[in-house]
Amino acid sequence: MKLYFLGTAGSKPTLERNPPCIALAFRKDVILFDCGEGSQRQMIKRIKQSKIKRIFITHFHGDHYLGLPGLIMTMSLNDRKDPLEIYGPEGTIEFLSNLFRSGYMEIGYELMIRELKEDTLEFEGYSIKSFPVDHGVPSLGFIFMEDDRRGAFNTEKAKEIGLEGKMFSLLEEEGELEVSGRIIKLGDVTGKGRHGVRITYSGDTRPVKFPSEAKGSDVLIHEATFLEDSERKETYHSTVKEACEAADAIGAVRLILTHINSRYAQSEIEAEAKRHFGNVAIAEDLMEVEI
Amino acid sequence: MKLYFLGTAGSKPTLERNPPCIALAFRKDVILFDCGEGSQRQMIKRIKQSKIKRIFITHFHGDHYLGLPGLIMTMSLNDRKDPLEIYGPEGTIEFLSNLFRSGYMEIGYELMIRELKEDTLEFEGYSIKSFPVDHGVPSLGFIFMEDDRRGAFNTEKAKEIGLEGKMFSLLEEEGELEVSGRIIKLGDVTGKGRHGVRITYSGDTRPVKFPSEAKGSDVLIHEATFLEDSERKETYHSTVKEACEAADAIGAVRLILTHINSRYAQSEIEAEAKRHFGNVAIAEDLMEVEI
Repeated sequence: MKLYFLGTAGSKPTLERNPPCIALAFRKDVILFDCGEGSQRQMIKRIKQSKIKRIFITHFHGDHYLGLPGLIMTMSLNDRKDPLEIYGPEGTIEFLSNLFRSGYMEIGYELMIRELKEDTLEFEGYSIKSFPVDHGVPSLGFIFMEDDRRGAFNTEKAKEIGLEGKMFSLLEEEGELEVSGRIIKLGDVTGKGRHGVRITYSGDTRPVKFPSEAKGSDVLIHEATFLEDSERKETYHSTVKEACEAADAIGAVRLILTHINSRYAQSEIEAEAKRHFGNVAIAEDLMEVEI
Repeated sequence: MKLYFLGTAGSKPTLERNPPCIALAFRKDVILFDCGEGSQRQMIKRIKQSKIKRIFITHFHGDHYLGLPGLIMTMSLNDRKDPLEIYGPEGTIEFLSNLFRSGYMEIGYELMIRELKEDTLEFEGYSIKSFPVDHGVPSLGFIFMEDDRRGAFNTEKAKEIGLEGKMFSLLEEEGELEVSGRIIKLGDVTGKGRHGVRITYSGDTRPVKFPSEAKGSDVLIHEATFLEDSERKETYHSTVKEACEAADAIGAVRLILTHINSRYAQSEIEAEAKRHFGNVAIAEDLMEVEI
Protein backbone atom coordinates (compact mmCIF):
# COMPACT_ATOMS: atom_id res chain seq x y z
CA MET A 1 0.00 0.00 0.00
CA LYS A 2 1.06 3.58 -0.49
CA LEU A 3 0.51 6.89 1.28
CA TYR A 4 0.37 10.10 -0.73
CA PHE A 5 0.75 13.39 1.12
CA LEU A 6 -1.31 15.66 -1.14
CA GLY A 7 -1.40 18.60 1.27
CA THR A 8 0.80 19.20 4.32
CA ALA A 9 0.24 22.87 5.25
CA GLY A 10 -0.96 24.27 8.53
CA SER A 11 -4.04 26.48 8.55
CA LYS A 12 -2.84 28.62 5.62
CA PRO A 13 -1.55 27.26 2.32
CA THR A 14 1.89 28.37 1.18
CA LEU A 15 3.72 28.31 -2.13
CA GLU A 16 5.05 24.84 -1.24
CA ARG A 17 2.21 23.37 0.81
CA ASN A 18 -1.48 22.83 0.05
CA PRO A 19 -3.96 22.40 2.93
CA PRO A 20 -4.23 18.93 4.54
CA CYS A 21 -5.07 15.88 2.45
CA ILE A 22 -3.63 12.37 2.72
CA ALA A 23 -4.51 9.56 0.32
CA LEU A 24 -3.96 5.89 1.07
CA ALA A 25 -3.98 3.53 -1.89
CA PHE A 26 -4.86 0.07 -0.62
CA ARG A 27 -5.42 -2.72 -3.12
CA LYS A 28 -7.58 -1.14 -5.84
CA ASP A 29 -9.18 1.56 -3.68
CA VAL A 30 -8.10 4.96 -2.46
CA ILE A 31 -9.08 6.23 1.00
CA LEU A 32 -8.77 9.93 1.73
CA PHE A 33 -8.03 11.52 5.08
CA ASP A 34 -9.06 15.20 5.07
CA CYS A 35 -9.62 17.14 1.89
CA GLY A 36 -8.42 20.75 2.04
CA GLU A 37 -8.99 23.35 -0.66
CA GLY A 38 -7.20 22.44 -3.89
CA SER A 39 -6.85 18.72 -3.09
CA GLN A 40 -8.52 17.71 -6.37
CA ARG A 41 -5.81 19.50 -8.31
CA GLN A 42 -3.04 17.86 -6.27
CA MET A 43 -4.61 14.48 -7.08
CA ILE A 44 -4.07 15.02 -10.79
CA LYS A 45 -0.36 14.60 -10.07
CA ARG A 46 -0.60 11.41 -8.04
CA ILE A 47 -3.87 9.44 -7.93
CA LYS A 48 -7.03 8.81 -9.92
CA GLN A 49 -9.89 10.51 -8.10
CA SER A 50 -12.29 7.97 -9.58
CA LYS A 51 -10.67 5.38 -7.29
CA ILE A 52 -11.57 7.24 -4.11
CA LYS A 53 -14.08 5.11 -2.27
CA ARG A 54 -14.31 6.75 1.14
CA ILE A 55 -13.24 10.01 2.71
CA PHE A 56 -12.53 10.56 6.42
CA ILE A 57 -12.68 14.17 7.63
CA THR A 58 -11.01 14.82 10.98
CA HIS A 59 -12.90 18.08 11.72
CA PHE A 60 -14.63 21.07 10.19
CA HIS A 61 -12.04 23.79 10.22
CA GLY A 62 -11.87 25.12 6.66
CA ASP A 63 -8.39 23.84 5.84
CA HIS A 64 -9.53 20.23 6.37
CA TYR A 65 -12.73 20.02 4.29
CA LEU A 66 -13.02 22.89 1.79
CA GLY A 67 -11.71 20.73 -1.06
CA LEU A 68 -14.71 18.39 -0.72
CA PRO A 69 -17.36 20.24 -2.79
CA GLY A 70 -15.05 20.78 -5.77
CA LEU A 71 -13.91 17.16 -5.71
CA ILE A 72 -17.50 15.91 -5.43
CA MET A 73 -18.56 18.12 -8.37
CA THR A 74 -15.66 17.01 -10.54
CA MET A 75 -16.48 13.37 -9.82
CA SER A 76 -20.01 14.10 -11.02
CA LEU A 77 -18.78 15.87 -14.17
CA ASN A 78 -16.65 12.77 -14.78
CA ASP A 79 -19.83 10.64 -14.68
CA ARG A 80 -19.06 8.80 -11.47
CA LYS A 81 -21.72 6.22 -10.71
CA ASP A 82 -20.23 4.53 -7.63
CA PRO A 83 -21.48 5.84 -4.28
CA LEU A 84 -19.03 7.91 -2.26
CA GLU A 85 -18.75 7.47 1.51
CA ILE A 86 -17.90 10.44 3.72
CA TYR A 87 -17.19 10.04 7.44
CA GLY A 88 -16.58 12.76 9.96
CA PRO A 89 -17.21 13.88 13.54
CA GLU A 90 -20.43 15.11 15.12
CA GLY A 91 -21.91 17.88 12.97
CA THR A 92 -20.75 16.40 9.65
CA ILE A 93 -24.26 15.85 8.26
CA GLU A 94 -25.44 19.38 9.02
CA PHE A 95 -22.19 20.99 7.84
CA LEU A 96 -22.18 19.09 4.55
CA SER A 97 -25.83 19.77 3.88
CA ASN A 98 -25.13 23.49 4.33
CA LEU A 99 -22.09 23.18 2.08
CA PHE A 100 -24.13 21.50 -0.66
CA ARG A 101 -26.65 24.36 -0.45
CA SER A 102 -23.94 27.00 -0.95
CA GLY A 103 -24.44 27.02 -4.72
CA TYR A 104 -25.98 25.04 -7.58
CA MET A 105 -24.74 21.48 -7.06
CA GLU A 106 -26.16 18.52 -8.92
CA ILE A 107 -24.54 15.25 -7.93
CA GLY A 108 -25.12 12.29 -10.23
CA TYR A 109 -24.21 9.54 -7.75
CA GLU A 110 -25.05 8.59 -4.20
CA LEU A 111 -23.36 10.16 -1.17
CA MET A 112 -23.33 8.16 2.04
CA ILE A 113 -22.53 10.43 5.00
CA ARG A 114 -21.99 9.14 8.53
CA GLU A 115 -20.95 10.74 11.80
CA LEU A 116 -18.46 8.91 14.00
CA LYS A 117 -17.30 9.10 17.61
CA GLU A 118 -15.25 6.17 18.90
CA ASP A 119 -16.20 3.63 16.25
CA THR A 120 -14.70 0.77 14.32
CA LEU A 121 -15.79 0.30 10.71
CA GLU A 122 -15.10 -2.96 8.91
CA PHE A 123 -14.29 -2.90 5.21
CA GLU A 124 -12.92 -5.43 2.77
CA GLY A 125 -9.43 -6.21 3.97
CA TYR A 126 -9.20 -3.52 6.64
CA SER A 127 -10.96 -1.60 9.41
CA ILE A 128 -10.90 2.04 10.36
CA LYS A 129 -11.09 3.03 13.99
CA SER A 130 -12.08 6.62 14.78
CA PHE A 131 -11.32 8.24 18.14
CA PRO A 132 -11.95 11.69 19.61
CA VAL A 133 -8.99 14.05 19.90
CA ASP A 134 -8.58 17.41 21.67
CA HIS A 135 -9.00 20.29 19.22
CA GLY A 136 -11.67 22.55 20.72
CA VAL A 137 -14.34 21.43 18.24
CA PRO A 138 -15.55 17.85 17.60
CA SER A 139 -12.48 16.23 16.05
CA LEU A 140 -11.30 12.74 15.26
CA GLY A 141 -8.14 10.80 14.74
CA PHE A 142 -8.18 7.61 12.66
CA ILE A 143 -6.42 4.26 12.71
CA PHE A 144 -6.22 2.25 9.52
CA MET A 145 -5.92 -1.44 10.41
CA GLU A 146 -5.18 -3.90 7.66
CA ASP A 147 -6.63 -7.34 8.41
CA ASP A 148 -4.06 -9.77 9.76
CA ARG A 149 -2.93 -12.23 7.13
CA ARG A 150 -2.87 -15.97 7.77
CA GLY A 151 0.38 -17.84 7.17
CA ALA A 152 0.92 -19.90 4.01
CA PHE A 153 -0.60 -23.39 3.82
CA ASN A 154 1.74 -26.16 4.95
CA THR A 155 0.86 -28.35 2.00
CA GLU A 156 2.68 -31.43 3.33
CA LYS A 157 0.82 -31.33 6.62
CA ALA A 158 -2.46 -30.62 4.83
CA LYS A 159 -2.04 -33.67 2.62
CA GLU A 160 -1.21 -35.86 5.61
CA ILE A 161 -4.51 -34.81 7.19
CA GLY A 162 -6.33 -35.51 3.94
CA LEU A 163 -7.14 -31.98 2.75
CA GLU A 164 -7.62 -31.70 -1.00
CA GLY A 165 -9.28 -29.67 -3.75
CA LYS A 166 -12.05 -27.35 -2.60
CA MET A 167 -11.42 -28.21 1.04
CA PHE A 168 -8.70 -25.54 1.21
CA SER A 169 -11.03 -22.69 0.31
CA LEU A 170 -13.79 -24.09 2.51
CA LEU A 171 -11.40 -24.25 5.47
CA GLU A 172 -10.30 -20.70 4.73
CA GLU A 173 -13.86 -19.43 4.66
CA GLU A 174 -15.15 -21.31 7.68
CA GLY A 175 -12.04 -21.29 9.82
CA GLU A 176 -12.52 -25.00 10.57
CA LEU A 177 -13.58 -28.12 8.74
CA GLU A 178 -14.38 -31.74 9.52
CA VAL A 179 -12.01 -34.07 7.68
CA SER A 180 -12.52 -37.84 8.17
CA GLY A 181 -14.40 -37.21 11.41
CA ARG A 182 -11.74 -34.89 12.80
CA ILE A 183 -12.12 -31.08 13.28
CA ILE A 184 -9.26 -29.28 11.53
CA LYS A 185 -8.62 -25.61 12.30
CA LEU A 186 -7.09 -23.26 9.74
CA GLY A 187 -4.18 -22.60 12.11
CA ASP A 188 -3.39 -26.36 12.20
CA VAL A 189 -2.26 -26.36 8.57
CA THR A 190 -0.88 -22.83 8.09
CA GLY A 191 2.39 -21.23 9.11
CA LYS A 192 2.86 -18.11 11.19
CA GLY A 193 0.58 -15.22 10.14
CA ARG A 194 1.53 -11.60 9.50
CA HIS A 195 0.06 -8.69 11.43
CA GLY A 196 -1.77 -6.25 9.19
CA VAL A 197 -0.27 -2.81 8.64
CA ARG A 198 -1.47 -0.07 11.03
CA ILE A 199 -1.41 3.61 10.23
CA THR A 200 -2.53 6.15 12.81
CA TYR A 201 -3.43 9.73 11.87
CA SER A 202 -3.78 12.24 14.71
CA GLY A 203 -5.73 14.93 12.88
CA ASP A 204 -5.34 18.32 14.59
CA THR A 205 -4.99 17.94 18.33
CA ARG A 206 -3.31 18.77 21.59
CA PRO A 207 -1.59 15.73 23.06
CA VAL A 208 -4.05 12.91 23.75
CA LYS A 209 -3.77 9.27 24.78
CA PHE A 210 -4.31 7.19 21.66
CA PRO A 211 -6.51 4.06 21.88
CA SER A 212 -4.82 0.71 22.33
CA GLU A 213 -5.35 -0.17 18.67
CA ALA A 214 -2.71 2.44 17.78
CA LYS A 215 -0.01 0.42 19.62
CA GLY A 216 2.82 -0.62 17.36
CA SER A 217 1.59 1.43 14.40
CA ASP A 218 3.82 1.06 11.37
CA VAL A 219 3.32 4.76 10.72
CA LEU A 220 2.06 7.54 12.95
CA ILE A 221 1.13 10.66 11.00
CA HIS A 222 0.98 13.42 13.59
CA GLU A 223 0.34 17.14 13.36
CA ALA A 224 3.25 19.28 14.55
CA THR A 225 2.16 22.89 14.47
CA PHE A 226 4.56 24.47 16.94
CA LEU A 227 8.19 24.26 17.95
CA GLU A 228 7.81 25.81 21.41
CA ASP A 229 5.11 25.11 23.94
CA SER A 230 4.83 28.86 24.58
CA GLU A 231 3.71 29.53 20.99
CA ARG A 232 0.63 27.37 21.28
CA LYS A 233 -1.23 29.85 23.48
CA GLU A 234 -4.98 29.13 23.36
CA THR A 235 -4.83 26.93 20.25
CA TYR A 236 -5.46 23.19 20.25
CA HIS A 237 -2.35 21.97 18.47
CA SER A 238 0.76 19.95 19.29
CA THR A 239 4.44 20.78 19.33
CA VAL A 240 7.01 18.75 17.41
CA LYS A 241 8.23 17.32 20.74
CA GLU A 242 4.71 16.25 21.74
CA ALA A 243 4.23 14.52 18.38
CA CYS A 244 7.44 12.60 19.05
CA GLU A 245 6.26 11.70 22.53
CA ALA A 246 3.01 10.37 21.05
CA ALA A 247 5.01 8.17 18.68
CA ASP A 248 7.03 6.90 21.63
CA ALA A 249 3.93 6.25 23.71
CA ILE A 250 2.34 3.98 21.09
CA GLY A 251 5.67 2.44 20.03
CA ALA A 252 5.27 3.60 16.43
CA VAL A 253 7.86 2.30 13.99
CA ARG A 254 7.93 5.48 11.98
CA LEU A 255 6.70 9.03 12.57
CA ILE A 256 5.70 11.47 9.82
CA LEU A 257 5.03 15.05 10.89
CA THR A 258 2.50 17.14 9.01
CA HIS A 259 0.37 20.32 9.35
CA ILE A 260 3.58 22.28 9.00
CA ASN A 261 3.56 25.90 10.07
CA SER A 262 5.00 28.29 7.50
CA ARG A 263 6.74 30.33 10.20
CA TYR A 264 9.49 27.73 10.66
CA ALA A 265 12.25 26.59 8.34
CA GLN A 266 11.99 22.90 7.50
CA SER A 267 15.49 22.39 8.92
CA GLU A 268 14.41 23.74 12.34
CA ILE A 269 11.50 21.29 12.53
CA GLU A 270 13.71 18.46 11.39
CA ALA A 271 16.40 19.20 13.97
CA GLU A 272 13.88 19.39 16.79
CA ALA A 273 12.16 16.16 15.69
CA LYS A 274 15.43 14.22 15.41
CA ARG A 275 16.24 15.17 18.98
CA HIS A 276 13.15 13.35 20.20
CA PHE A 277 12.45 10.44 17.83
CA GLY A 278 14.75 8.40 15.63
CA ASN A 279 12.68 7.34 12.63
CA VAL A 280 10.99 10.61 11.79
CA ALA A 281 10.30 12.49 8.55
CA ILE A 282 8.69 15.85 7.78
CA ALA A 283 5.89 15.44 5.23
CA GLU A 284 6.17 17.38 1.98
CA ASP A 285 3.49 17.94 -0.62
CA LEU A 286 3.28 15.08 -3.14
CA MET A 287 5.57 12.87 -1.02
CA GLU A 288 4.89 9.14 -1.47
CA VAL A 289 5.49 6.53 1.22
CA GLU A 290 5.41 2.85 0.35
CA ILE A 291 4.46 0.64 3.29
CA MET B 1 -3.60 49.03 -14.05
CA LYS B 2 -2.92 45.34 -14.38
CA LEU B 3 -4.99 42.20 -14.91
CA TYR B 4 -3.84 38.93 -13.36
CA PHE B 5 -5.39 35.72 -14.66
CA LEU B 6 -5.15 33.55 -11.54
CA GLY B 7 -7.38 30.77 -12.85
CA THR B 8 -8.43 30.10 -16.45
CA ALA B 9 -9.89 26.56 -16.42
CA GLY B 10 -13.32 25.46 -17.48
CA SER B 11 -15.49 23.58 -14.98
CA LYS B 12 -12.70 21.17 -13.97
CA PRO B 13 -9.19 22.23 -12.95
CA THR B 14 -6.27 20.72 -14.85
CA LEU B 15 -2.56 20.42 -14.20
CA GLU B 16 -2.07 23.77 -15.95
CA ARG B 17 -5.26 25.62 -15.11
CA ASN B 18 -6.92 26.52 -11.81
CA PRO B 19 -10.66 27.34 -11.69
CA PRO B 20 -11.72 30.90 -12.68
CA CYS B 21 -10.29 33.92 -10.87
CA ILE B 22 -9.25 37.26 -12.32
CA ALA B 23 -7.63 40.02 -10.27
CA LEU B 24 -7.50 43.65 -11.36
CA ALA B 25 -4.97 45.85 -9.59
CA PHE B 26 -6.13 49.44 -9.90
CA ARG B 27 -4.25 52.13 -8.01
CA LYS B 28 -3.67 50.64 -4.55
CA ASP B 29 -6.62 48.24 -4.52
CA VAL B 30 -7.24 44.82 -5.97
CA ILE B 31 -10.66 43.84 -7.32
CA LEU B 32 -11.42 40.16 -7.83
CA PHE B 33 -13.74 38.68 -10.43
CA ASP B 34 -14.74 35.11 -9.44
CA CYS B 35 -12.82 33.08 -6.92
CA GLY B 36 -12.56 29.39 -7.78
CA GLU B 37 -11.07 26.73 -5.50
CA GLY B 38 -7.38 27.29 -4.91
CA SER B 39 -7.41 30.99 -5.85
CA GLN B 40 -5.78 32.01 -2.55
CA ARG B 41 -2.78 29.86 -3.35
CA GLN B 42 -2.47 31.31 -6.86
CA MET B 43 -2.46 34.78 -5.29
CA ILE B 44 0.70 34.01 -3.36
CA LYS B 45 2.48 34.07 -6.73
CA ARG B 46 1.08 37.38 -7.97
CA ILE B 47 -0.83 39.67 -5.60
CA LYS B 48 -1.18 40.51 -1.92
CA GLN B 49 -4.55 39.21 -0.76
CA SER B 50 -4.63 41.90 1.91
CA LYS B 51 -5.13 44.43 -0.90
CA ILE B 52 -8.36 42.84 -2.12
CA LYS B 53 -11.12 45.31 -1.43
CA ARG B 54 -14.09 43.88 -3.31
CA ILE B 55 -14.97 40.59 -4.97
CA PHE B 56 -17.47 40.16 -7.81
CA ILE B 57 -18.87 36.65 -8.29
CA THR B 58 -20.50 35.99 -11.68
CA HIS B 59 -22.59 33.00 -10.52
CA PHE B 60 -22.78 30.11 -8.05
CA HIS B 61 -21.48 27.14 -9.96
CA GLY B 62 -18.74 25.64 -7.78
CA ASP B 63 -15.82 26.51 -10.04
CA HIS B 64 -16.56 30.24 -9.65
CA TYR B 65 -16.92 30.65 -5.87
CA LEU B 66 -15.44 27.72 -3.93
CA GLY B 67 -12.20 29.59 -3.26
CA LEU B 68 -14.09 32.24 -1.26
CA PRO B 69 -14.30 30.59 2.18
CA GLY B 70 -10.61 29.65 2.29
CA LEU B 71 -9.58 33.14 1.19
CA ILE B 72 -11.91 34.75 3.74
CA MET B 73 -10.51 32.53 6.52
CA THR B 74 -6.90 33.22 5.58
CA MET B 75 -7.59 36.97 5.59
CA SER B 76 -8.94 36.54 9.10
CA LEU B 77 -5.91 34.50 10.22
CA ASN B 78 -3.80 37.35 8.80
CA ASP B 79 -5.63 39.78 11.12
CA ARG B 80 -7.46 41.68 8.40
CA LYS B 81 -9.45 44.56 9.88
CA ASP B 82 -10.74 46.25 6.69
CA PRO B 83 -14.25 45.24 5.63
CA LEU B 84 -14.51 43.02 2.55
CA GLU B 85 -17.21 43.62 -0.04
CA ILE B 86 -18.70 40.70 -1.96
CA TYR B 87 -21.11 41.21 -4.85
CA GLY B 88 -22.96 38.55 -6.79
CA PRO B 89 -26.24 37.69 -8.49
CA GLU B 90 -29.61 36.88 -6.94
CA GLY B 91 -29.13 34.17 -4.31
CA THR B 92 -25.69 35.35 -3.17
CA ILE B 93 -26.75 36.18 0.39
CA GLU B 94 -28.42 32.83 1.00
CA PHE B 95 -25.64 30.85 -0.71
CA LEU B 96 -22.90 32.57 1.27
CA SER B 97 -24.72 32.24 4.56
CA ASN B 98 -25.02 28.48 3.90
CA LEU B 99 -21.34 28.38 2.95
CA PHE B 100 -20.31 30.12 6.17
CA ARG B 101 -22.35 27.55 8.12
CA SER B 102 -20.54 24.62 6.47
CA GLY B 103 -17.93 24.46 9.24
CA TYR B 104 -16.48 26.45 12.12
CA MET B 105 -15.73 29.87 10.65
CA GLU B 106 -14.87 32.87 12.77
CA ILE B 107 -14.28 36.00 10.74
CA GLY B 108 -12.57 38.88 12.50
CA TYR B 109 -13.62 41.65 10.09
CA GLU B 110 -16.82 42.86 8.47
CA LEU B 111 -18.28 41.28 5.33
CA MET B 112 -20.55 43.43 3.19
CA ILE B 113 -22.58 41.23 0.82
CA ARG B 114 -24.85 42.64 -1.87
CA GLU B 115 -26.91 41.11 -4.66
CA LEU B 116 -26.87 42.79 -8.08
CA LYS B 117 -28.98 42.66 -11.23
CA GLU B 118 -28.40 45.42 -13.77
CA ASP B 119 -26.66 47.91 -11.49
CA THR B 120 -23.93 50.51 -11.58
CA LEU B 121 -21.76 50.91 -8.50
CA GLU B 122 -19.59 53.99 -8.06
CA PHE B 123 -16.24 53.65 -6.35
CA GLU B 124 -13.22 55.92 -6.01
CA GLY B 125 -11.89 56.39 -9.51
CA TYR B 126 -14.11 53.82 -11.24
CA SER B 127 -17.54 52.24 -11.50
CA ILE B 128 -18.62 48.66 -11.99
CA LYS B 129 -21.67 47.88 -14.08
CA SER B 130 -23.26 44.46 -13.63
CA PHE B 131 -25.56 42.95 -16.25
CA PRO B 132 -27.46 39.64 -16.50
CA VAL B 133 -26.09 37.00 -18.87
CA ASP B 134 -27.56 33.72 -20.14
CA HIS B 135 -26.22 30.77 -18.13
CA GLY B 136 -29.28 28.87 -16.91
CA VAL B 137 -28.88 30.14 -13.32
CA PRO B 138 -28.77 33.78 -12.15
CA SER B 139 -25.49 35.00 -13.64
CA LEU B 140 -23.79 38.31 -14.23
CA GLY B 141 -21.22 39.90 -16.46
CA PHE B 142 -19.29 42.96 -15.28
CA ILE B 143 -17.90 46.12 -16.85
CA PHE B 144 -15.08 47.94 -15.08
CA MET B 145 -15.20 51.62 -16.06
CA GLU B 146 -12.35 53.85 -15.01
CA ASP B 147 -13.46 57.47 -14.55
CA ASP B 148 -12.66 59.68 -17.50
CA ARG B 149 -9.62 61.88 -16.90
CA ARG B 150 -9.63 65.60 -17.63
CA GLY B 151 -6.96 67.02 -19.91
CA ALA B 152 -3.93 68.86 -18.49
CA PHE B 153 -4.28 72.53 -17.49
CA ASN B 154 -3.37 74.98 -20.24
CA THR B 155 -1.38 77.19 -17.88
CA GLU B 156 -0.90 80.03 -20.37
CA LYS B 157 -4.62 80.30 -21.04
CA ALA B 158 -5.37 79.99 -17.32
CA LYS B 159 -3.03 82.88 -16.49
CA GLU B 160 -4.59 85.02 -19.23
CA ILE B 161 -7.99 84.52 -17.62
CA GLY B 162 -6.57 85.32 -14.22
CA LEU B 163 -6.57 81.91 -12.53
CA GLU B 164 -4.00 81.57 -9.76
CA GLY B 165 -3.16 79.72 -6.53
CA LYS B 166 -6.01 77.80 -4.96
CA MET B 167 -8.35 78.69 -7.82
CA PHE B 168 -7.07 75.67 -9.77
CA SER B 169 -8.16 73.15 -7.17
CA LEU B 170 -11.42 75.00 -6.58
CA LEU B 171 -12.19 74.91 -10.31
CA GLU B 172 -11.35 71.23 -10.40
CA GLU B 173 -13.66 70.46 -7.47
CA GLU B 174 -16.59 72.62 -8.56
CA GLY B 175 -16.32 72.25 -12.34
CA GLU B 176 -16.76 76.01 -12.76
CA LEU B 177 -15.64 79.22 -11.07
CA GLU B 178 -16.34 82.94 -11.27
CA VAL B 179 -13.16 84.86 -12.09
CA SER B 180 -13.42 88.66 -12.34
CA GLY B 181 -17.16 88.41 -12.95
CA ARG B 182 -16.83 85.78 -15.67
CA ILE B 183 -17.88 82.08 -15.34
CA ILE B 184 -14.94 79.85 -16.27
CA LYS B 185 -15.59 76.13 -16.90
CA LEU B 186 -12.92 73.51 -16.26
CA GLY B 187 -13.00 72.55 -19.94
CA ASP B 188 -12.13 76.14 -20.93
CA VAL B 189 -8.65 75.89 -19.47
CA THR B 190 -7.80 72.18 -19.92
CA GLY B 191 -6.75 70.21 -22.96
CA LYS B 192 -8.47 67.16 -24.39
CA GLY B 193 -9.46 64.56 -21.75
CA ARG B 194 -8.76 60.84 -21.82
CA HIS B 195 -11.49 58.25 -21.72
CA GLY B 196 -11.16 55.89 -18.75
CA VAL B 197 -10.17 52.30 -19.40
CA ARG B 198 -13.05 49.83 -19.83
CA ILE B 199 -12.79 46.12 -19.19
CA THR B 200 -15.74 43.83 -19.84
CA TYR B 201 -15.96 40.32 -18.36
CA SER B 202 -18.63 38.01 -19.75
CA GLY B 203 -18.70 35.45 -16.95
CA ASP B 204 -20.14 32.12 -18.18
CA THR B 205 -22.80 32.65 -20.82
CA ARG B 206 -24.37 31.81 -24.12
CA PRO B 207 -24.12 34.74 -26.54
CA VAL B 208 -25.90 37.84 -25.18
CA LYS B 209 -26.15 41.48 -26.25
CA PHE B 210 -23.84 43.45 -23.95
CA PRO B 211 -25.04 46.78 -22.52
CA SER B 212 -24.02 49.98 -24.31
CA GLU B 213 -21.39 50.71 -21.62
CA ALA B 214 -19.33 47.81 -23.00
CA LYS B 215 -18.88 49.62 -26.35
CA GLY B 216 -15.25 50.27 -27.18
CA SER B 217 -13.91 48.19 -24.26
CA ASP B 218 -10.15 48.18 -24.10
CA VAL B 219 -10.34 44.52 -23.12
CA LEU B 220 -13.14 42.00 -23.42
CA ILE B 221 -12.53 38.89 -21.31
CA HIS B 222 -14.92 36.29 -22.68
CA GLU B 223 -15.53 32.66 -21.87
CA ALA B 224 -14.85 30.29 -24.77
CA THR B 225 -15.84 26.81 -23.70
CA PHE B 226 -16.45 25.11 -27.05
CA LEU B 227 -14.96 25.00 -30.52
CA GLU B 228 -18.02 23.69 -32.31
CA ASP B 229 -21.61 24.79 -31.85
CA SER B 230 -22.67 21.12 -31.88
CA GLU B 231 -20.65 20.39 -28.72
CA ARG B 232 -22.57 22.86 -26.61
CA LYS B 233 -25.69 20.70 -26.41
CA GLU B 234 -27.87 21.80 -23.48
CA THR B 235 -25.13 23.80 -21.73
CA TYR B 236 -25.13 27.58 -21.42
CA HIS B 237 -21.68 28.38 -22.76
CA SER B 238 -20.17 30.12 -25.80
CA THR B 239 -18.00 28.92 -28.64
CA VAL B 240 -14.69 30.59 -29.52
CA LYS B 241 -16.36 32.03 -32.60
CA GLU B 242 -19.20 33.51 -30.57
CA ALA B 243 -16.74 35.12 -28.16
CA CYS B 244 -15.04 36.73 -31.17
CA GLU B 245 -18.39 37.93 -32.49
CA ALA B 246 -19.13 39.51 -29.11
CA ALA B 247 -15.80 41.37 -29.27
CA ASP B 248 -16.72 42.56 -32.77
CA ALA B 249 -20.19 43.63 -31.70
CA ILE B 250 -18.90 45.92 -28.93
CA GLY B 251 -15.86 47.05 -30.91
CA ALA B 252 -13.43 45.76 -28.28
CA VAL B 253 -9.79 46.66 -28.83
CA ARG B 254 -8.53 43.39 -27.44
CA LEU B 255 -10.11 40.02 -26.69
CA ILE B 256 -8.86 37.56 -24.08
CA LEU B 257 -10.46 34.13 -24.06
CA THR B 258 -10.80 32.20 -20.81
CA HIS B 259 -12.72 29.28 -19.20
CA ILE B 260 -10.66 27.01 -21.39
CA ASN B 261 -11.87 23.45 -21.88
CA SER B 262 -9.23 20.78 -21.27
CA ARG B 263 -10.47 18.71 -24.20
CA TYR B 264 -8.84 21.03 -26.76
CA ALA B 265 -5.22 21.79 -27.52
CA GLN B 266 -4.33 25.45 -26.96
CA SER B 267 -3.22 25.64 -30.61
CA GLU B 268 -6.68 24.59 -31.84
CA ILE B 269 -8.37 27.33 -29.83
CA GLU B 270 -5.81 29.88 -30.97
CA ALA B 271 -6.22 28.99 -34.64
CA GLU B 272 -10.02 29.20 -34.44
CA ALA B 273 -9.88 32.53 -32.57
CA LYS B 274 -7.42 34.11 -35.03
CA ARG B 275 -9.81 33.26 -37.86
CA HIS B 276 -12.48 35.46 -36.30
CA PHE B 277 -10.77 38.29 -34.40
CA GLY B 278 -7.42 39.98 -34.91
CA ASN B 279 -6.26 41.09 -31.47
CA VAL B 280 -6.99 37.97 -29.46
CA ALA B 281 -5.11 36.00 -26.80
CA ILE B 282 -5.87 32.80 -24.90
CA ALA B 283 -5.59 33.35 -21.15
CA GLU B 284 -3.09 31.25 -19.23
CA ASP B 285 -2.79 30.83 -15.48
CA LEU B 286 -0.68 33.57 -13.88
CA MET B 287 -0.67 35.64 -17.09
CA GLU B 288 -0.36 39.39 -16.47
CA VAL B 289 -1.80 42.04 -18.76
CA GLU B 290 -0.79 45.68 -18.31
CA ILE B 291 -3.45 48.12 -19.53
